[in-house]
Amino acid sequence: MTISLPIAGNIFCIVGGASLVGSATAAHFLEQGAAEVRVFDNFVFGGEAALSHIKDHPRLRVVRGDVMRLPDLLAAQRGAHGVLQLAALMTLNMDRDSWTGMDVNIRGVQNSLEAARHNQVGKFVFASSNAVYGYGPGIRGELVEGTPFHSAGAPPAAILYGATKIIGEQLCRAAFQKHGQDYVVLRYSTVYGERQHYRAANALYIIETYDAVRAGRAPQIVGDGSETKHFVYVGDLARANAAAFEAAATDVAVNTSGPAPITTLELVRLVTEIAGGGPAPEFIGETPGKVRLTSGGAFDIVHDRAGAALGWRPQVEMREGLTRLIRWLEEDRARNAP
Amino acid sequence: MTISLPIAGNIFCIVGGASLVGSATAAHFLEQGAAEVRVFDNFVFGGEAALSHIKDHPRLRVVRGDVMRLPDLLAAQRGAHGVLQLAALMTLNMDRDSWTGMDVNIRGVQNSLEAARHNQVGKFVFASSNAVYGYGPGIRGELVEGTPFHSAGAPPAAILYGATKIIGEQLCRAAFQKHGQDYVVLRYSTVYGERQHYRAANALYIIETYDAVRAGRAPQIVGDGSETKHFVYVGDLARANAAAFEAAATDVAVNTSGPAPITTLELVRLVTEIAGGGPAPEFIGETPGKVRLTSGGAFDIVHDRAGAALGWRPQVEMREGLTRLIRWLEEDRARNAP
Repeated sequence: MTISLPIAGNIFCIVGGASLVGSATAAHFLEQGAAEVRVFDNFVFGGEAALSHIKDHPRLRVVRGDVMRLPDLLAAQRGAHGVLQLAALMTLNMDRDSWTGMDVNIRGVQNSLEAARHNQVGKFVFASSNAVYGYGPGIRGELVEGTPFHSAGAPPAAILYGATKIIGEQLCRAAFQKHGQDYVVLRYSTVYGERQHYRAANALYIIETYDAVRAGRAPQIVGDGSETKHFVYVGDLARANAAAFEAAATDVAVNTSGPAPITTLELVRLVTEIAGGGPAPEFIGETPGKVRLTSGGAFDIVHDRAGAALGWRPQVEMREGLTRLIRWLEEDRARNAP
Repeated sequence: MTISLPIAGNIFCIVGGASLVGSATAAHFLEQGAAEVRVFDNFVFGGEAALSHIKDHPRLRVVRGDVMRLPDLLAAQRGAHGVLQLAALMTLNMDRDSWTGMDVNIRGVQNSLEAARHNQVGKFVFASSNAVYGYGPGIRGELVEGTPFHSAGAPPAAILYGATKIIGEQLCRAAFQKHGQDYVVLRYSTVYGERQHYRAANALYIIETYDAVRAGRAPQIVGDGSETKHFVYVGDLARANAAAFEAAATDVAVNTSGPAPITTLELVRLVTEIAGGGPAPEFIGETPGKVRLTSGGAFDIVHDRAGAALGWRPQVEMREGLTRLIRWLEEDRARNAP
């Protein structure tokens, strides 16, 4: 069994690859000399646009398929040395359609693990989430890999999402224990960066804030703005994915969060500053019935174990990452302007 | 919408009814004057024997069907006023076949909720578990309904089982929030009693201990015997199921545990005493690779909320419940002796 799997010279299949993280990771793996990068996606949520920066690369292969169809995965993973499992419905979509959410987030992982086993894939990297620590006021202090799952006071969709990620991790562990499938679990914190999609509630907040400020409207903050968010820049996650394959590590789950947490108020001020200034934020109450994902707590997602196990640490501070995101946003809108 | 649903005069469908809890509940509901009790089961784990005490009852209807087939559930729940959702793979079977475990414990609940919605079932009672508090040394002290899910140090199958129960509960909550489906979640602790099956690891331990003592062998205790177990007698759960339908309660999850927790050593001593005496226990180490479900902790599953919300409290002490179980065991073996 392969435990350390170099990116250079090997073939990777990124399941759910036409996504924010998937497209950045595909580009990074190609730069690092991967023999081939296969982007597997059903293009329901993922879009061609996410791959525009690499679509003509000679070592990129785009494979249309669906994680619910095992034959699609068997074919796509054939001859692959590593599989990165990203495909998932996040909380907002889980709220709309928990049926599909269970399919993609659980059966999709089972199918992918079965395909990997059949194809003797050397290493499987599973994109989990800090959602495995749950939501609500119980989330406080340092979140380390042994922190339990809090759910009291959280909306159903958020709990469902977190629970599917707990299950995905354990399906990997069971595959390791039963069939020796090497794997690494990365618990992504909230991702942001260029080619940001409009589906993730917390990351979308950055764009909403920017748009408000640019239009001369006051950005809205629910509550007093003291809530913690802990983002991670997409390029740092692309490096984390590479490290998960390359490190001599298996059967481990690690947090991959950005350099430091930020409060909502600090985030809004930073976005406003990068936007060149604008109105002061407006503090508002909860919108009944709207799914919110923030905790109300003050926490710090500790990524020390990722350093120890994978030699990874985040490099991009929020000021730099937000500047890159906003630059891309403006360029993208200019390109797509009528 | 019906919130308080009397047992007398109404029709109930027990999904996964050919089981320890299902058969006791069917008998109880028939005694309480239910107009009809439908026992829905695929008879893969459940057996005809579980229903032997009621099989000729004129108001009992046995329906063969599978929770993975929505049409089966649509037909079985037609005209039912209440649905009790029991069907599930427990941890030992989850370890053998997590694929079926995800199907039954998640898609099975989704199918049953969809059937209930289509048939305008007044109230849905979901059998959850104290497994939603997890496993491992993190489980200590009083376990109340807001206690988070601990999983560090637990085997994959135990975490998978607990996570599917968390998901089942949230699927009920989502059905309540989106379609007004009234529901009650009961978090059963470890069930034991007459017609005990041989699938649940903790309850099976009682029978193994009894058999060892009766054969003059020393009963085995893993560790020092100080580990907590918290059982509940099956007849108390049958009453809890009735109370969940009858109480004016909805959108609530409550613990349904026995009168008090017990340590492994106390349990072994009690079983030995009921057996008429026998060898002292032997303390052994862990068996590598064997799935164990006990926590290593000292805990008490508090059922006060069940008292407040449903007017339920357990009545049968372990000495009495164990005496009944062992009497049934001897009678059952005498009946089935060649």
